[in-house]
Amino acid sequence: MHVFDTEVFYEDTDMGGIVYHANYLKFIERGRSAFVRELGIDQLALREAGTVFVIRRIAAEFLRPARFGELLRVETEVARITGTRLVLGQAVWRDATCLFRAEAELACMGADGRPQRLPAELGAQLGG
Amino acid sequence: MHVFDTEVFYEDTDMGGIVYHANYLKFIERGRSAFVRELGIDQLALREAGTVFVIRRIAAEFLRPARFGELLRVETEVARITGTRLVLGQAVWRDATCLFRAEAELACMGADGRPQRLPAELGAQLGG
Amino acid sequence: MHVFDTEVFYEDTDMGGIVYHANYLKFIERGRSAFVRELGIDQLALREAGTVFVIRRIAAEFLRPARFGELLRVETEVARITGTRLVLGQAVWRDATCLFRAEAELACMGADGRPQRLPAELGAQLGG
Amino acid sequence: MHVFDTEVFYEDTDMGGIVYHANYLKFIERGRSAFVRELGIDQLALREAGTVFVIRRIAAEFLRPARFGELLRVETEVARITGTRLVLGQAVWRDATCLFRAEAELACMGADGRPQRLPAELGAQLGG
Repeated sequence: MHVFDTEVFYEDTDMGGIVYHANYLKFIERGRSAFVRELGIDQLALREAGTVFVIRRIAAEFLRPARFGELLRVETEVARITGTRLVLGQAVWRDATCLFRAEAELACMGADGRPQRLPAELGAQLGG
Repeated sequence: MHVFDTEVFYEDTDMGGIVYHANYLKFIERGRSAFVRELGIDQLALREAGTVFVIRRIAAEFLRPARFGELLRVETEVARITGTRLVLGQAVWRDATCLFRAEAELACMGADGRPQRLPAELGAQLGG
Repeated sequence: MHVFDTEVFYEDTDMGGIVYHANYLKFIERGRSAFVRELGIDQLALREAGTVFVIRRIAAEFLRPARFGELLRVETEVARITGTRLVLGQAVWRDATCLFRAEAELACMGADGRPQRLPAELGAQLGG
Repeated sequence: MHVFDTEVFYEDTDMGGIVYHANYLKFIERGRSAFVRELGIDQLALREAGTVFVIRRIAAEFLRPARFGELLRVETEVARITGTRLVLGQAVWRDATCLFRAEAELACMGADGRPQRLPAELGAQLGG
């Protein structure tokens, strides 16, 4: 389970006085970027070498609102791996309260826009 | 089927050269706001009267990328209505190409934060 | 005077119940993009040819708040042109009320990151 | 001099491959919020008590681009204080390189939307 801490800034709120719903997708991407980086993978180097990850599917549940100034914890774990796809389970917590939960499916693509097998180093580390 | 036109601005793009994935959630919310407004419902007045809609669940598929300057069409239709929930089917198109597709579930809530029946005028118009 | 119409979406608001201040910079960039496009200039083609415009300076005054659902008008005019820089005067209006006013200075740069003269077609059209 | 550390996330970038210019305004607001909080002032409590700060003017220079994954340092200092206004000098640094510099003027307002003197505790701490 990978953990990433983030904070609710003023910019994240909306006129409802809570975090704007689409911003949870930003929060979990911050978590994914940290997760990948801490596996020792350099997203920018991969991109220059012609490999990118793109989001294919997100199934999200919005359970409770977050508010300005709160400290949030983004949890990320690998749900499953296929040859060219990586499915992550992610959640956003405030202390012991789960605010948001999602499954995110990423596809690995080559420079030609076609599906590509996950980089070997990533597959190996994720046990895929 | 409700249709709302929008455009990809520079602010919507990311370093991948395409629309940042979380921004499709903004696009479909623009569509929902227009949809509700064109039903003759005033979101702000509802809110002041103590009724708000909150997103409970979004299941989204990212099919093809959109790019700077493109004109997009957001389609919204009612998938189903229960007493306190409204499920919408939404899609983002560029000409005849579907770029993004989602199901969004909204809950109606009162000032006390508890589920509330959909406003009668809305239910009536939506055939719920 | 170039005019561009835009609308305040839910995503533009913050917990103060008004448009988040940084979003006015997005609104005026939408205006600049439309302004440039209507001069017959293709930003993407320029970029591929190695010429980009970058923001160097913005001096902004926030006069009155905008709110959800309001229709705004972004006005853009050329304040002055030097060899490599373009200074625009921009404002955001709601009907006859000026909400925001800014001067934006853009620099033209080549692929090597060095200042470059404005494209001739642009300079000619702007009377520079 | 108050210092706040932040990071460039994927969401902050644009199709130019760098941080979208308006996002520097978000970065410096994160710095201002932390600055105020560390002075022991609770923005939310102030707001409930009917006092808010609104941005009146920002003069910003964009010196060098920031990129994905970079660690940034936001510096904030009080430039001057008048009865109802607070002027801050702010800058964004990457290591020893200044990327962005701004002067931000905030006005203190009461619930009635009229200018209000700065809260005494804030004035006292800022030496105003």
